[in-house]
Amino acid sequence: MSCVFCRIVSGEEPSQTIHQDEHAIAFLNLAQATRGHTLVVPRAHHRDLADIPVEVAAQVMGTAVEVSRRLAGALRAPGVNLWHASGETAWQSVFHFHLHVVPRFELTDLTPPWTEVEHPVESLTGLAGEIRAWP
Amino acid sequence: MSCVFCRIVSGEEPSQTIHQDEHAIAFLNLAQATRGHTLVVPRAHHRDLADIPVEVAAQVMGTAVEVSRRLAGALRAPGVNLWHASGETAWQSVFHFHLHVVPRFELTDLTPPWTEVEHPVESLTGLAGEIRAWP
Repeated sequence: MSCVFCRIVSGEEPSQTIHQDEHAIAFLNLAQATRGHTLVVPRAHHRDLADIPVEVAAQVMGTAVEVSRRLAGALRAPGVNLWHASGETAWQSVFHFHLHVVPRFELTDLTPPWTEVEHPVESLTGLAGEIRAWP
Repeated sequence: MSCVFCRIVSGEEPSQTIHQDEHAIAFLNLAQATRGHTLVVPRAHHRDLADIPVEVAAQVMGTAVEVSRRLAGALRAPGVNLWHASGETAWQSVFHFHLHVVPRFELTDLTPPWTEVEHPVESLTGLAGEIRAWP
């Protein structure tokens, strides 16, 4: 499987998963725009808004709502942004549909497009455990 | 009604609506981050990710998928972003849940948070007509 998110869904690629359900999984983004920055992806491979079935996108959104509440609670984040990119022209870089859930702690801590350093997946183990442990 | 989006839903406040269904309506944002920048809002008043029912957020996402396809088609936009803010700390300014659908035409045409000028609603009539006419 050449798609990195498909390999994360199958468990072939390690990730810090913080939530999963029948339709979608949520894992910490290696590039942490803010502390707790998470990606929600459907288990099935769909590229973008042009090809994802409407009901699958809706399921991903439902999962993102649950994830946003977990992040806000576990990390005491007063704000949350959702972000999605379809197409290279919109800054999409992995072509498996995904929704970013970005906890916000202050007005000045986010400047898309995010050009942060990618953390090694093991370095996020503690943070993922903290999020999974809530409430 | 003090909520401007509730007044748009009821028709009390004018808007350039480009799509509506049972659960949500979509209208051009007066601040056009890019040409065609649209907001999708549930008909019912919910503040943010903390209080919106999961199924209503999912319905809003379903509508946003349809809207994204209409915008991409009508305006020949090669990319689309979705954006949502919950909480002042995340740049939320209207406290009725909404999802931004932002057509993208080039990599350099978007710099959140958007500080654009607000257009008079009448000035967007032609653009809204172009989008509604598709396909």
